[in-house]
Amino acid sequence: MVSAIPVPPANTLWHAKMRSYDQLDHAAFASAADDSTGLDDVLAWLEAERAEVSCELEPVPLDEIARWRTDTATGDLVHDSGRFFAIRGLDVTTNYGPVERWSQPIIDQPEVGVLGLLVREVRGVTQVLIQAKMEPGNINLVQLSPTVQATHSNYDRVHGGAAPRYLEHFLAGTRDRVRVDVLQSEQGARFLRKRNRNMIVEVIGDVPVHEGFRWLTLRQLHRLLRLDNVVNMDLRSVLSCLQFSRWSAGMPTRSDLLAGQHSPLAHSVLAPDDALHTSGELLAWSTDARMRYRLNTRIVPLSEVSRWQRDKWHIAHEDGLYFTVGGVAVRMASREVSGWMQPVIAPTHEGLAAMVLTSINGVPHALMQAKLEAGNRDVVEIAPTVQCITRNYQHLLPEERPEHLSLVTDVAPEHVLFDAYQSEEGGRFFRQQNKYVIVEYHGDLHAVESPNHRWMSIGQLKNLVLYSNYVNVEARSLLACACAVIEGGNA
Amino acid sequence: MVSAIPVPPANTLWHAKMRSYDQLDHAAFASAADDSTGLDDVLAWLEAERAEVSCELEPVPLDEIARWRTDTATGDLVHDSGRFFAIRGLDVTTNYGPVERWSQPIIDQPEVGVLGLLVREVRGVTQVLIQAKMEPGNINLVQLSPTVQATHSNYDRVHGGAAPRYLEHFLAGTRDRVRVDVLQSEQGARFLRKRNRNMIVEVIGDVPVHEGFRWLTLRQLHRLLRLDNVVNMDLRSVLSCLQFSRWSAGMPTRSDLLAGQHSPLAHSVLAPDDALHTSGELLAWSTDARMRYRLNTRIVPLSEVSRWQRDKWHIAHEDGLYFTVGGVAVRMASREVSGWMQPVIAPTHEGLAAMVLTSINGVPHALMQAKLEAGNRDVVEIAPTVQCITRNYQHLLPEERPEHLSLVTDVAPEHVLFDAYQSEEGGRFFRQQNKYVIVEYHGDLHAVESPNHRWMSIGQLKNLVLYSNYVNVEARSLLACACAVIEGGNA
Repeated sequence: MVSAIPVPPANTLWHAKMRSYDQLDHAAFASAADDSTGLDDVLAWLEAERAEVSCELEPVPLDEIARWRTDTATGDLVHDSGRFFAIRGLDVTTNYGPVERWSQPIIDQPEVGVLGLLVREVRGVTQVLIQAKMEPGNINLVQLSPTVQATHSNYDRVHGGAAPRYLEHFLAGTRDRVRVDVLQSEQGARFLRKRNRNMIVEVIGDVPVHEGFRWLTLRQLHRLLRLDNVVNMDLRSVLSCLQFSRWSAGMPTRSDLLAGQHSPLAHSVLAPDDALHTSGELLAWSTDARMRYRLNTRIVPLSEVSRWQRDKWHIAHEDGLYFTVGGVAVRMASREVSGWMQPVIAPTHEGLAAMVLTSINGVPHALMQAKLEAGNRDVVEIAPTVQCITRNYQHLLPEERPEHLSLVTDVAPEHVLFDAYQSEEGGRFFRQQNKYVIVEYHGDLHAVESPNHRWMSIGQLKNLVLYSNYVNVEARSLLACACAVIEGGNA
Repeated sequence: MVSAIPVPPANTLWHAKMRSYDQLDHAAFASAADDSTGLDDVLAWLEAERAEVSCELEPVPLDEIARWRTDTATGDLVHDSGRFFAIRGLDVTTNYGPVERWSQPIIDQPEVGVLGLLVREVRGVTQVLIQAKMEPGNINLVQLSPTVQATHSNYDRVHGGAAPRYLEHFLAGTRDRVRVDVLQSEQGARFLRKRNRNMIVEVIGDVPVHEGFRWLTLRQLHRLLRLDNVVNMDLRSVLSCLQFSRWSAGMPTRSDLLAGQHSPLAHSVLAPDDALHTSGELLAWSTDARMRYRLNTRIVPLSEVSRWQRDKWHIAHEDGLYFTVGGVAVRMASREVSGWMQPVIAPTHEGLAAMVLTSINGVPHALMQAKLEAGNRDVVEIAPTVQCITRNYQHLLPEERPEHLSLVTDVAPEHVLFDAYQSEEGGRFFRQQNKYVIVEYHGDLHAVESPNHRWMSIGQLKNLVLYSNYVNVEARSLLACACAVIEGGNA
């Protein structure tokens, strides 16, 4: 039973716009999929898991978050153990964008967690072991997540819970085959250099399927990605790292794809030689952007962050922009522990992450952006064509808006290939959903390239996510969605 | 005219062992090379450049390094402008190796310099534009360097000199073709997260060849690499990034190599599919090592670094190990400025960087090491099979010595494929030469793999250097040397 969320006074924190999968026309999706994909079945399972979660959420004042305290010297929000994460202040100086200097709250979470996906191949079809996982900030509370989604604190059992299921497959000494293991960044606008370890492990032999877990095919996941707030951020991120060729980490070849996936992906995701730019040119472009921009950051006391104010319930920007920090109490039975309180970050407005896709000689290419965010480890990462908080730009003149916004907003409906709300991480963000959009482009290729934008093939992006800190989390999400688009064609 | 180096009292700083190219049997090299490679000619040119350098070096007390001062609060050695670099203290805590905590002086040089190599192809032969460059710490003073070797301070002209020659080819807006552009680390034991920008640019059209510059073929460079202290560290690093296939940044294919290089490399450096491990497995191994080890560093005042002592001339470790910090006065006419003083780092003992090479199904593979160094940006980078300061281990029992040291030291002469002294960066290090060795291995492949060692093909290494912070500078040097070995066969 999911409780209603009480609304604290005078803030947008608890008013995240909900466009949940409940409001969608499931029949339309079910009919689009053929019977074998069994989407209805998966959705019914998710619904049952959701019904079973006995969970109550309640906002708590910042000073009453149990086991968390406000550091008297800095005003930082920290856990009594010094672990998990902290909310601190960050002073930022940069030559990127119109604002040269600001300060902001930032999530400092130095521990690297594991996002682990167990995969297997059954009669040539790739299956992944999915968890229906509740997280307090999730829209719908329960979403599809990787097999394992654990912080170091989790598996060190700092809060006394049991070790997460299947964790042993992702630890040293596993007899399974580690296929991908890469450190990837998360939201650079919110996290200070946070990274998670994205792992894909091919399981050798049978594993028991525990309560709350299920093998799904990649094709099913691609369909489910088209629904709002069903596939969580961590799963999207790990999925983006899945390589199409038969488990080698190189580029997918046409024959590999045909042999291994039985999917239309085979026909469209080709080797990088077919790309507009060589991978070397793209890497050089990315290095050039890292050198062109300056990013100087300094941790400062949270109490000294300018233009942000703290009241009993929230830390919020004085113009009501960006996000707010609040506290939440969670009471539940199905998680590792029965309940806890924690700070959460809530968006004040919806975000937009949009990828402009085109076909060049039959090879799908995305127009990607070199984007600086305050928490980036290396100045710039590769981001979607457009990534912004929509509201922030509504008062701007058209020419002041984010580059290429109009490519996404002024587009005929038949050129919208993908359009769904996806949630950001439910363990830190409270009901943060962003609009993920993929649109088709039919204009001049070179007209839309600029110092910060380059076309790269989906295959090149797939290769880049094997290396740390090249592709940001929003772009990885869209990469997972793009594969759903490519597989599904225009159906 | 190169002056004699005065020897300050009671320290090893100025006693770096010299085994310069002058002491070698040039005739042996000249006869090994065929006439067309013109080694004699290159060496004569280098000698002439060296004779022309009017330079005097003189040690100066730490308190008398002009434009440098000792910060009164921290004891750090800093430049008056706050630029160039500083010598600070670093407190290190780690679970890697036998020592869990120490502190040490470290070079803090946040500015990213450019190491730029101009290349061209003439009748299918790759040529690179080489500079005969003097640097104060160089053994032999003048060594072969990349076309451009410039710090940001250099090209911002902080010290009032002229802009380096050819720099325009490496700046935004060049009409040349940028082939490689990647940020690479330098010595993690000495530098705090330092990186340089390694660029390879194919020049379009003719360029004037200025005094002190010369086009050399790759084959010539491969021969010159076998000589002691001729090819400087920056050039070795950039050379390691050169891709063999016809300028694509992907893997070299056999046909690319045959078409583009006219070199035996074509027969031996194959696509990664022929490697013992997939690139995905190697990347996963590298991530696992980054996660297995902990590296916590904190800048501390240089005056508080324990077990290091400062006298008038030096900052040195109390056991005479590692390195010393001293000051040097440089007076010369041929550099951007006529003279300056600066701190330098001098080794107390020789270092060893050794690569164990073998052929697996005809594909050359190197046994590489995941190694933690205090100044690393991301815990671990891929290092040579063995990388150590030899002297540090001479008092240890055999079982306490660096893993695989015996593979390099107990080897029949006919299995030594490469053996030369190479200098480390002459702008910061004073007469630091390390022994670079490549030996052939004929034993059990799996017996020498361990948690920190993996076989990878030379092609896989060539691919990894296209990404930042995967391969350390000693390994990149050896990668350049390995290509010399492979090209030259056993001749």
